Amino acid sequence: MAEQDPLVVFTPSGKRGRFAVGTPILTAARQLGVDLDSVCGGRGICSKCQITPGVGEFSKHGVTVAPDALSPWNSVEERYDEKRGLKAGRRLGCQATVQSDVVIDVPPESQVHKQVVRKAATARDIVMDPATRLFYVEVDEPDMHEPTGDFERLARALKQQWQVEGLRADLTLMTKLQKVLRKGKWRVTVALHRDHRATRSTIVEIWPGLHESGLYGLAIDLGSTTIAAHLTDLETGEVKASSGIMNPQIRFGEDLMSRVSYGMMNPGGEVEMTTAVREALNTLAAEVAKEAGIEPALIVETVFVCNPVMHHLLLGIDPVELGQAPFALATSASLRIDAKELDLDTINPRAKVYILPCIAGHVGADSAAVALSEEPGKSQDLALMVDVGTNAEILLGDTSRVLACSSPTGPAFEGAQISSGQRAAPGAIEAIRIDPVTREPRFRVIGCDLWSDEEGFAEATATTGITGICGSGIIEAVAEMRIAGLVDPSGLIGSAAQTGTPRSQPEGRTHAYLIHDATDEGGPRITVTQGDIRAIQLAKSALYAGSRLLMDERGVDKVDRVVLAGAFGAHISPLHAMVLGMIPDVPLDKVTSAGNAAGTGARIALCNIAARAEIEQTVGRITKVETAIAPKFQEHFVNANAIPHATDPFPELRKVVNLPEVSFNTGGDDAEGGRRRRRRRG
Amino acid sequence: MAEQDPLVVFTPSGKRGRFAVGTPILTAARQLGVDLDSVCGGRGICSKCQITPGVGEFSKHGVTVAPDALSPWNSVEERYDEKRGLKAGRRLGCQATVQSDVVIDVPPESQVHKQVVRKAATARDIVMDPATRLFYVEVDEPDMHEPTGDFERLARALKQQWQVEGLRADLTLMTKLQKVLRKGKWRVTVALHRDHRATRSTIVEIWPGLHESGLYGLAIDLGSTTIAAHLTDLETGEVKASSGIMNPQIRFGEDLMSRVSYGMMNPGGEVEMTTAVREALNTLAAEVAKEAGIEPALIVETVFVCNPVMHHLLLGIDPVELGQAPFALATSASLRIDAKELDLDTINPRAKVYILPCIAGHVGADSAAVALSEEPGKSQDLALMVDVGTNAEILLGDTSRVLACSSPTGPAFEGAQISSGQRAAPGAIEAIRIDPVTREPRFRVIGCDLWSDEEGFAEATATTGITGICGSGIIEAVAEMRIAGLVDPSGLIGSAAQTGTPRSQPEGRTHAYLIHDATDEGGPRITVTQGDIRAIQLAKSALYAGSRLLMDERGVDKVDRVVLAGAFGAHISPLHAMVLGMIPDVPLDKVTSAGNAAGTGARIALCNIAARAEIEQTVGRITKVETAIAPKFQEHFVNANAIPHATDPFPELRKVVNLPEVSFNTGGDDAEGGRRRRRRRG
Repeated sequence: MAEQDPLVVFTPSGKRGRFAVGTPILTAARQLGVDLDSVCGGRGICSKCQITPGVGEFSKHGVTVAPDALSPWNSVEERYDEKRGLKAGRRLGCQATVQSDVVIDVPPESQVHKQVVRKAATARDIVMDPATRLFYVEVDEPDMHEPTGDFERLARALKQQWQVEGLRADLTLMTKLQKVLRKGKWRVTVALHRDHRATRSTIVEIWPGLHESGLYGLAIDLGSTTIAAHLTDLETGEVKASSGIMNPQIRFGEDLMSRVSYGMMNPGGEVEMTTAVREALNTLAAEVAKEAGIEPALIVETVFVCNPVMHHLLLGIDPVELGQAPFALATSASLRIDAKELDLDTINPRAKVYILPCIAGHVGADSAAVALSEEPGKSQDLALMVDVGTNAEILLGDTSRVLACSSPTGPAFEGAQISSGQRAAPGAIEAIRIDPVTREPRFRVIGCDLWSDEEGFAEATATTGITGICGSGIIEAVAEMRIAGLVDPSGLIGSAAQTGTPRSQPEGRTHAYLIHDATDEGGPRITVTQGDIRAIQLAKSALYAGSRLLMDERGVDKVDRVVLAGAFGAHISPLHAMVLGMIPDVPLDKVTSAGNAAGTGARIALCNIAARAEIEQTVGRITKVETAIAPKFQEHFVNANAIPHATDPFPELRKVVNLPEVSFNTGGDDAEGGRRRRRRRG
Repeated sequence: MAEQDPLVVFTPSGKRGRFAVGTPILTAARQLGVDLDSVCGGRGICSKCQITPGVGEFSKHGVTVAPDALSPWNSVEERYDEKRGLKAGRRLGCQATVQSDVVIDVPPESQVHKQVVRKAATARDIVMDPATRLFYVEVDEPDMHEPTGDFERLARALKQQWQVEGLRADLTLMTKLQKVLRKGKWRVTVALHRDHRATRSTIVEIWPGLHESGLYGLAIDLGSTTIAAHLTDLETGEVKASSGIMNPQIRFGEDLMSRVSYGMMNPGGEVEMTTAVREALNTLAAEVAKEAGIEPALIVETVFVCNPVMHHLLLGIDPVELGQAPFALATSASLRIDAKELDLDTINPRAKVYILPCIAGHVGADSAAVALSEEPGKSQDLALMVDVGTNAEILLGDTSRVLACSSPTGPAFEGAQISSGQRAAPGAIEAIRIDPVTREPRFRVIGCDLWSDEEGFAEATATTGITGICGSGIIEAVAEMRIAGLVDPSGLIGSAAQTGTPRSQPEGRTHAYLIHDATDEGGPRITVTQGDIRAIQLAKSALYAGSRLLMDERGVDKVDRVVLAGAFGAHISPLHAMVLGMIPDVPLDKVTSAGNAAGTGARIALCNIAARAEIEQTVGRITKVETAIAPKFQEHFVNANAIPHATDPFPELRKVVNLPEVSFNTGGDDAEGGRRRRRRRG
C-alpha cells in the first residue's frame, strides 16, 4: 500500500485504503474489514461478492473514478453472466481488480451481516450472523506419503481457507464424507455450525461442489395451546413460510398444571406427552418446509422458546417439580443439543437445536425471548412488558434493572372457561362496542372486516356464522359493559330493571348480557354471564397483581409504558385492557403491542449467534420474583378485583373514558363470590 | 503454618509441612499435593482416605511421633469401623487431626494415582488416572428466591467442591437428575468423564448418596479374527475379567481385503458387517460383565484398538477407500464418541468411547496401541516391533525417530491356506522338533504339556486328538525342516532319496513331509506340503520386506532388538522365526515377546487420561512408510524368498544353529514358482 497506489473507497461503510494495481476488490474488502460476502473464497463460482463500481466524480470521497478504474470483464464474469445473469453494472468482487482510484458500492445482498429490517417501527433490526453458515472449500487429495484422514484434510483446508478451528463431525457425517469429497472432486460446500460458547464448529452437512440451494432454520414458539414455526432463510433472514399447529398435549390437559398432574397421575404420562409434542414438531417441520417448497434436509438449525413446563416436556423431563414449590427446573441454562436427541427426524439428521434459557420455574425461555426481542434492559424509560397467555409472563425494567415474574391468569383470556368462549377462529367475535345510551352491541367477527351493524355483514359472515367469543372479544365485551353501565365496579351485571335494556336477562340468581341470539336459525345464543365476568376478574386480577408485585419490588407505583406481547397481546385493545384494569394506568399512547415478541426473540437467536450469548447474560442479570410465595401478591390480587380497581385512581384512563358510578349490589350472595374463588395456576 | 506448628511428614512421598493443631490429615495432604484419595471430599463417608500414622522415632525424617500425635478416634471412625471394619492401625484421613509432629503413611490403595504393576518385566507400569472418576457432592437445595436449575446447582457444587469446569450432561441424564437428587437428599455421587482435549466434563452417571459399587471400563482389541475385551476396575486398574469372541465378520471374508470386497460387491454389505460386529461387542460386553459379576451399567467407558478396516467398519464407514491406493482413511485422528453412537447398549447408556488414532491407511489404531505400550520413541537402542497378524504392523524406532508400515503377510501365519492348517485350538500342533540325524519329528499340541515322544502323550491327547497345525506350529515345522536338511534354501522339499527319510513322500510333482498319520484310526494325515512352504515363504518375505523397508528409510542394515507383539507373537519361537528369516538377524536374546501389546495399549489409554494425549502426539510424529508403492519393497520381497535369505548373512543366527547347505533343485518347474506367485494384501 504505497502512497501512489490507487485509492479504493467502499460504500456504504466509507472504509478506504490504497491497494496495488491488480488487487482484487474482494481482497481489498477483506483487508479493510468491509462486509463483503463470499462462500467460495474468491474462486469466482459463488457470485456472493457482487459489487457495483461507481464512475465519475465523487466529491464526498474526493475521488474521480475513471471508466477503466477496474480491470475489464474477464472470462469468469462472462461465463457467470451467461449462465446466471449479472445485474447491469455489477461485477464479481473476486475477479475485478483495482486499476486506478475507485468507489465500490456493496449492495445489501452482498453483505454477510445483512440487516433484516423488521416491520414494527419500535423493534430492532436483526443483523444476520447465524450460527450455521456455508463454506466452500478445496481439500487436498490424499497422499500415501503423508497419510492423513479425509476428515483431517478437510479440517486443515477449512482452517487455512476460512480460519475455522476445532472442527468436529458426527459418525453419520463421517459415513458420507469420502463419497462426497470424491464426487465433488475435492471441492465441497459444508454447512458449519459454530458453538457460541466454545471454539468449536460442527459439520452439519456436506455437499459436492458449490451448494446453491440455500440453508434454513426454524424458529419455534412452543406454546401450551399452539406451536408456531417460522422457516427462515439463514442467508437472507427472510421468513420463507410460517405455520402453526395445535399442541397435541391439549388432550392431556388444557392448562399447564393439568399436564403436570396428568404426568403425576399416569405412570409414563410425561413420556406420552413428550412423544406427542415431538411428533407434532416433526409434522409441523415437514409442513412448513413443504409450504416453502424446500427440502426438509436443508433445515439445519432450530431455535425453541417455550414456557418451563413445555420446555421440560420437550426435553423428556418429568415436569412434576414445576407443579409444587420451590418450582425447581431440572436445568435453567440455555441448551445446545442435537435435533436427533429430540427425535426430530423430518429435518436434517444432524440439525442443531438451541433452546433459550429459562428465567425461573414459572418464567420460561419464552420470557427470555421477549427480553431478547423487546430489550427491557436497554429501555431508557421504565417499561412493563406483559406476555399474556395461560400464564402471563411479566418483565419490568429499564437500563438500571430488570425484574421478571409469572402470574397464573388461567385460560380465560384465551376464551376458555367462558360460557360462549372459543379459540380465535373465523366466526368468533373479536371486537365489540356497546352504545352507552341504547346499550345495544355491535361487533366484528374474525374473517370479516365489517361491523355487525354495517351493510353486507350478514352476507359476509354467512359461511362462518357467528360462533362464539374469543379472548380479545370477551375482554372488550366486559370492558364495554362496564363503560355502558351494565356492570358495576364490583363486577355485578345489573338486571333489565336496573340497566334499562332487555338484553340484561336473568340467568339463575344472576344476570347475563345478550350479545347475539341466533337460536331461531338454529344458531348459538351468545351472552356474557355473571360467571364469565368473574372468570375475567380472576384473570385480570392475577395479571395486575403480578405487575404490581414487580412495581413494589422496584419501589414504584407507576410505569412509563406498557408493551403487550404474545399473539394474543397483538389483538387486545389497550383501552379495554385498561378499563378492565389488566395493566397499570399509563397514557393510552404508551401502550403498544410487540406482536409475537417471543417468536421474534426465537428468530433473533436463529439469525444472530451473538444474540445467544447476549440473552444468556441478560437472563443472569434479571431479578426473579416468585408470585406464589409473595404475601403482597394475594393482597394485590384481592384489591384488583374491582373494575377498575378500588385502590387505583387510574387518572390517565379517566381522561379518555367515562366510567359510570353504578351499583347493582342488592345484598345478594354473589357479590363477594369472586373474591372467595381460589386462583389456579396453569 | 507457623514455625511452632506440628510437622507432618507423608510417606512414601516424603512431602512435609507444618500445620496448625486440629488440621485434618486430608487437608494437610491436599495442601502439600500428596496423592491421597477421597470421593466424598472429606465428609467421613467414603473411607478412601485411609492412612496409617507411625509411632516412635523416625530418624530418617528427624521426627519423633508421640502416641497421641493424632486426635483420638472419633464417632465417624467408630461407626465406619463397626459397619465396614477398618484395618488395624488405620485412620480416616479426613477425621484424624494433627496434634503434634507425625509421620503419615499413605497405603497404595489410598492413592488416587495408584500404580498398576504389570507382570512383564520390560513393560512400563500404568499410573491410574482414568478419564472417568467418581465424585461425591453435596448440592444446594432449590430456592425460589434465587431460581436456578438443579443441574446448574449441581454444576456449581462440583465446581466449588471439586474444581470441575465445563460440566455437561445429555438429555437422558437430565431426565433422571431431579429424582436422584431428591432421593439422595441433595447428596449424590456422579461419574464424571473428562475430555482430555478440552476443559469439559460430562456426567456419565449419577447415584443417590455415596456410590460404592465401583466403576468399570472395557479395553477392547478388535481384531479381524477375534475380539478381546478386558474389563478393568477404573479405581484400582485391576482386570476383573477378560473374554474373547470370534469376530462374526469372518463370515463375510477371512481377511481384511475380502471384507472390503464384500462391501463393494454387495450393496449394503458394509452395513451388514457393521451391524454384525456391534452385536458381537454387545454380547461380549454382557459376557465379560457377567463373568466379573458386575452390573453392565457400571461400565462407563470403552477404549478400542483395531486395524483401519475394522476401525471403519466399527464406525459404520464403508472401508472401500482402504482397498485401493492411496488408501485414504475417512478419519485418522483419535475419536471421542458416545457408546450409543456405536449401538453399544448393554453397557451404561451414556458410556464414552475412545478410539486410538490410526497411523495410516494400513497402520491402524492397533499399531498406535503397540506404540503406546512398547514406546519405541523412548527406546535408547534401535527397536523393531512386529505385530504379526493377517497384516503385520511394523514399527522401527528409538528416541530420535519412529517409522511405521504395514505389510500384507496374508493369513498363512494364522494357519490359514496351509494344507493341514487350523486356528490355535486344542489338538493343534503348536511346536515341533525334527531330529537332524533321524529326521523324525516330535511335537506338542495345544491342551497338553507333553511332547509326542513322552510317556502318556497318547492318553493325554485322546480327547482332543491331533487335528492339524496352527500358525506357530507351521513356522516351527518349516524352520525345523530347513535345519534338518529336509528343505533347501530355495524352499524345495527333498525326495526320500535326497533326504533319506520315508517321511518325504511324493505329492504330485513335488514332495510333502509327513508329521503324523492317523488315517488308520480314521484320523487326519498331517503333512507339510510344498505348497505350505511356498505360502510361508510368501508371508515371511512380506514381513521381512516390510522391516527391511523401514531399515532402508532409517538408513541402517541392522537393528539392536526385536519385539514380537500380538497374541500370535507371544507363541512364536524367536529361533524359528529367525531361521525362516521372518525378522532381521539379531542376537537371539534380543528377541522378546510383548504379548498382546495392542491390548495393553488399550488398557493404558483406559486407565490413564494423559496417555491419550501422549499417543496422539506420538502418532503425529511417526513417519509412515507405504509398502504398496515402494519399489524397494518388491525387491526386498523377492530377495527374502530363500530360507534364510540369499542376501543376508545372518551371522547371529549362524552362531546358534547349523543350516545345511543342500540343494534339491533338479531343474523341475517348481523352483521358481514361489517368485512368480503374486502377493496378496489382506
